[in-house]
Formats: sequence, C-alpha cells, structure tokens
Amino acid sequence: MKRIDGGICSVAGVRAAGARAGKYGVALIAASGAAAAVFTTNKVRAAPLDVTGEHLQATAGHLEGIIANSGCANAFTGQRGHDDARMMARLLAGFLGVEEKQIAMASTGVIGRYLDMDLIARLSEEAGSRLRSAPDASAEAARAIMTTDTRIKEIAVEHNGLHVAGIVKGAGMIEPNVATMLCFLFTDADLPAHALQDCLKDAVKESFNMLTVDGDMSTNDTVLLTATGRAKGKVEDLRAALLFVCVELARMMAKDGEGASKCFETVVTGAMNEKDARLAAKAVAKSSLVKTAVYGADPNWGRIVCALGYSGAEVDPDSITLGLEGSGLDVTLVQKGKIVEGVLDSAQRIMKGDAIIIRIDLGLGTAGARSFGCDLTHEYVNINANYTT
Amino acid sequence: MKRIDGGICSVAGVRAAGARAGKYGVALIAASGAAAAVFTTNKVRAAPLDVTGEHLQATAGHLEGIIANSGCANAFTGQRGHDDARMMARLLAGFLGVEEKQIAMASTGVIGRYLDMDLIARLSEEAGSRLRSAPDASAEAARAIMTTDTRIKEIAVEHNGLHVAGIVKGAGMIEPNVATMLCFLFTDADLPAHALQDCLKDAVKESFNMLTVDGDMSTNDTVLLTATGRAKGKVEDLRAALLFVCVELARMMAKDGEGASKCFETVVTGAMNEKDARLAAKAVAKSSLVKTAVYGADPNWGRIVCALGYSGAEVDPDSITLGLEGSGLDVTLVQKGKIVEGVLDSAQRIMKGDAIIIRIDLGLGTAGARSFGCDLTHEYVNINANYTT
Repeated sequence: MKRIDGGICSVAGVRAAGARAGKYGVALIAASGAAAAVFTTNKVRAAPLDVTGEHLQATAGHLEGIIANSGCANAFTGQRGHDDARMMARLLAGFLGVEEKQIAMASTGVIGRYLDMDLIARLSEEAGSRLRSAPDASAEAARAIMTTDTRIKEIAVEHNGLHVAGIVKGAGMIEPNVATMLCFLFTDADLPAHALQDCLKDAVKESFNMLTVDGDMSTNDTVLLTATGRAKGKVEDLRAALLFVCVELARMMAKDGEGASKCFETVVTGAMNEKDARLAAKAVAKSSLVKTAVYGADPNWGRIVCALGYSGAEVDPDSITLGLEGSGLDVTLVQKGKIVEGVLDSAQRIMKGDAIIIRIDLGLGTAGARSFGCDLTHEYVNINANYTT
Repeated sequence: MKRIDGGICSVAGVRAAGARAGKYGVALIAASGAAAAVFTTNKVRAAPLDVTGEHLQATAGHLEGIIANSGCANAFTGQRGHDDARMMARLLAGFLGVEEKQIAMASTGVIGRYLDMDLIARLSEEAGSRLRSAPDASAEAARAIMTTDTRIKEIAVEHNGLHVAGIVKGAGMIEPNVATMLCFLFTDADLPAHALQDCLKDAVKESFNMLTVDGDMSTNDTVLLTATGRAKGKVEDLRAALLFVCVELARMMAKDGEGASKCFETVVTGAMNEKDARLAAKAVAKSSLVKTAVYGADPNWGRIVCALGYSGAEVDPDSITLGLEGSGLDVTLVQKGKIVEGVLDSAQRIMKGDAIIIRIDLGLGTAGARSFGCDLTHEYVNINANYTT
C-alpha cells in the first residue's frame, strides 16, 4: 500500500472544488462511474440521504457527481427538505450537463433548520466555475464541508495498479454505524456497482463503524464510493486498499474528534465470536470514564474492565488479560484475571503519550476487533455547550 | 405521601453510624428483618455483591445489618476480594452478636485494588461504638460512603401508616440497570421477603434504572431493602411509598451527578410499547450532545430528535411532538413532525433554568416512561480526568 499525494484528484477522472461563506460551505465533485453508498441507520434520516438513495436505485448505482454542504443538516425538514435536496442535485446536474438522478447529495450541520438555498446556489456557482483535477482542489472540497473539524482529512493510495482516495468530514456525533461524517471515496477500478457495494460495506464495518467520538449517531452519515473505471484491477486489491483508506480516515477522525487531545485504539482478541469482540472494543472506546482517564493520563484500568463487563460481550473476569502500549512501552496490567503489581508507573507513562493502544485478551476464543476512540476533554464540552442552534 | 425527618433512623428498628478517614469511610446499619436486593448486571461484579447474594440466599432473605465502605470497590480482586468481603461481614456480625450470613456488605471506590482491611476494621470499631437511632446517625452513615458525591442524599416518608426511608450514594458511573450507587432502604412494613423483592424490583426499574449520569455501568451497584416489621401495612402502600422514595433519590443523584450544574427529565408518551418508551427516554438522557446543550442552555432540539432516531425505539419523524417545560414556561418546538417557528427564545429561557423537562410524544401508541439526567460539564471532565487510580 503506497501513499500518494493529491487526495481524491489523484484518481483519474475526478474533479473537485469548494466554496465557503461563514458556516456554510459547498463542495462539488465530478466523477463518472459505478457507485456504492452506506448511510446512517438513525431512524430520523436527513432528506439528502433519502434522495441520494432513490437516485442510486434509479441508476442501478451510477453517479456523475456529488454536491455536499455544511452549515445545515437538512434533517427533520419534511417535504421542503426533500425538495431542497433535489434542487441541490439539479444545481450540479446543470453544471455537468447530466441527469439529476445521476447526482448524489449530502448535508451536515444543525438539525431542524431549512437550507438557505440562495446561498447554496451562489456557492455552487462559485465552486462550479473552479471544478478541476488538482491536488489543491481535493483539499478545497474537503475544507468546504468542515464543521467542527479542525483540519482537512484526505488520503490517497496506490495498490497493485489501483488507486483509492477519500476525503472525510466529521468530528462529533460520531458513533455506531457511521455518524455525522460525510466521506467521499473514489477509485479508478473498473468494477461493477455490486462489487463496490460489497467492498464498501466491509471497509465501513471495520473502520468508521468502530469509531466513537461521543456515542451520538448522526442523522446524516453518508459514505459514497465512485469508481471511474480507468484501471483494470482485482476486487481483492480494491477491498484491501479501501479498508486501508477507511481505517486511516477513521484514525484521522478520532484524532480530530471534537476537543480531542489524543486518540486511542482498543484491540480485542480472544473473544468468543466477532460480535462480542466488536461489542467489547466499542464499549471501551465509548466509555466516558475511560475517555476522561485517557485525557487525565490516569492508568485507571478498572474503568476498562468495568466497560468490558457491561459491553454485552461474554466475559469472564478470571480470563481477562489487559495491557497498554505506547510511547515505546508495553505493559501488562492484568494477567488472566490477576492484578500485576508494580506496573502503574509505566502505565502512566504510556497514558501520557498521545497515541495509546489498549490491549485486551478476553481469553475465551479466537475472535478479535479494533476500535478507534479519543479522549473526552474540557474542549469537547466547550464546543458542544456553545455550538449555536 | 408525607415527607418526614430523620432519614433511615425514622424507621423503627433502624440504627446507624459512620466513620471516615481520608478517602475511606465505613457505614454501619443495624436493622433486623426480611430483606430484598437488586444488583448491577455488569458481568464484572464486585466481591461484596456475590457474598451478599449468597447470604440472602442462605437466610431466605433476612438481614440483621449492613456494612459498607467507600474508597475501594473491592472489584476485580479475585479470591482475596471474597475473603475480604466476608471479613467485613464478620466485623459487623461481631458487634451485633448475629451470624455472619445475616450481614450484607457493599463497597464503592477504585476498581482493581485490594481493601485496606486494617483501616476498615478500625473505622468499623469507631462506628460500631456509636450505632444509634438518631437523625444525625442517618446522615453520618450517608456521609461515610460518599465518594465524588457533594452532598448526602437521604429521604423518609410516611404513607398510610407505613414508613419508608433511604440513603443513597452515587454521582458517577451511573447508567443502565443501576450504577455505582449504593442505596440502603428501610421500611417498618411487616411483609415477607418475596413481596419486598417484587416491590423493590418495580421501584428500581422506574427510578434508578432510568437515571443516567455518564453511561457507565458500575461493577458495584447495590440496592438493599430491609423491613423491620414493626407496622402492619398493605403491599400496595409499600409499593407506592417505595417508588416515591426511589424516584426522589434518583432525582437527588441526577442533581448531584458528577460535575452537574443542572438536571433534566425526559418524559416520553405515545410510544408503541413500554420498552420503546424507556429506550427513547434513556437515549435522550444519555446523549452527550443533549447533555452539553443543557449545560450551554442551547435549545438545539435537533440533538433530541437525533437521539430518538438512534434509540432503538420505533419512531416516525412525522409523528413526533416535542416540547420543553421549565422556569414557568411550556413551549412546543415540534408539532407532529412540523417545526414550530418563533419559539426558540422561550426555549432558551427554559434551557437557562436549572430544572428542565423535555416532553416527547412519539404519537405512535399509549406507552410512556420518564428518565432522569444531568448536564455534561467542564467539572465532569475535571473530576474524572483527575480521579486518582
């Protein structure tokens, strides 16, 4: 897996642009090809998700472009929200000279407000005139859809002749089954929509769905994959590259979690089955007490054990082995249920680092999983107590 | 339901005392009678819960007294933890001249540490010499088991000739199915253990199990009810009084939640069934984004709708009615899925108050539930980032 520069514009056939005005931003991406999508499972689902879903169904998974805005989620907006979402599609379809149903759309921002369509039209016009295939165009599109994100998040890789790249937006409301994150992925692989959907589903499962910032699941999460078909390649190579890209984007999101000062990963092994491994890894990443302990560099591992106990996974306290890795150190705190004495100083040194791995062997089977989390800080409270309605 | 003074010592036959030394505290309560218990459902369960469970089984639900300590949870401590828990029971049994199996015990504090039994013996000795039936004795016992609590929490009521009273400890790790809360309830009702268990289970379900501070479920939660049998009374009167007492204690805990500056209640109606009502009410109470919005007095009701959407309950966005009550105001923000315009100023005035009711009608059925929560504040992060291991 070779990292390359250029963001999504490193994939042949992808053009991008973005424009901002205050809290509002609009990103346009033109890329023609087979497409796949994964959406939030929240029952309150924003209008653009419904409309994008309809479009993908109508075209059997083919897209010509994506239009996305920040500033307003267009969620819980009823019929008017649907009309506005369709209008967004028409804006980009007009620029590209394609059909409305060949456009996907996405929104992020405050829930329960109507879109400012005049502003979106103006920003789309501005961005549309700049659509181009250039490294700074990828960054510009990524920047246009940032909300509480503090930095743009993009990646591109080359793997056995295939290219896969993505931009992602998301820093809060990040939890099970994708959360206000908008992620736009591109590849030059010449593969049909159903193969893309299969690879995308698996990649999301091991990456974004194992990411927790605050346990809140958004109404707007959207992951879109478009394949421009310019390169011949194997499904397995796409699968591997896509997983790599999604995991790296998930890590970037954990690092840029709202108010986060550091991130941590929880690696679970020895679970009875995959479901248990995922439950255990997620419960630790999600625990407010673990997250504040990471912030305070406090090796209070009892909180980790406690989270395992209520995770829903099968656990036996006497079988648990627990350790920490980071800052060049690796300590075992609990060995098959027995407290290891004299290691708290080393544990604290690891906890003071900014990249911590919590290692858990449940000792019951052979299944494993990895979750991505970040600390819970004063700044998280600042951001979310003062986020204006 | 008449509130009375005196805490648990207002119930005939209850004596109490407490002693503290630094982070450690020991509470002793002597009360002879039929007993019932509810424990955490965390699979990592502290030693005192196992031993207390054994004791209640051995006596078919009869207790002579309770010994509880703060400072160390005696959780994840293996065989030594069980031995220590039994030693605690022996300490109080010795004072009271009763059998070890007639004693319940409870612990709260750091997980994964062994008890300082010398200190517990010394504090028990000190408290044991002061065991008495006096209003300040109830407060003394309540104070002895405080950890991050900022005030003692006790209540006593008289209802149709029956008395019910309780003390509770708990401010963090408070979540589903009881959390490090220790709650000791007493009544003079002359009722058998199975009737007590039934009333207790129901009361806990509607009170402590609907309380959320941080979403972490403790290894040590314990609710014990002892009936001294000095008064004749009906099961239904006990049920009503017990529910009242438990709900009031839950409210006190929400108000004293770690770092909380204000509390809120979520009242759900119109759910398809009781399970859905409870899921919906709990999801709102638990959402970090709702909790920070309450802290910031931000009427960002989209976060409430969002939490309903991922709660697991059946919801239809077009059927939701949503309002806020407090500070003498009552506003409807959403009426059957339609955004009500022009009410955000009133909503903000309510959010600035320190007691907020979030009113949700799902519009799908007739079931309802109420949850108890508190805001997520800078002080929560302070407390938990700096809580020493």
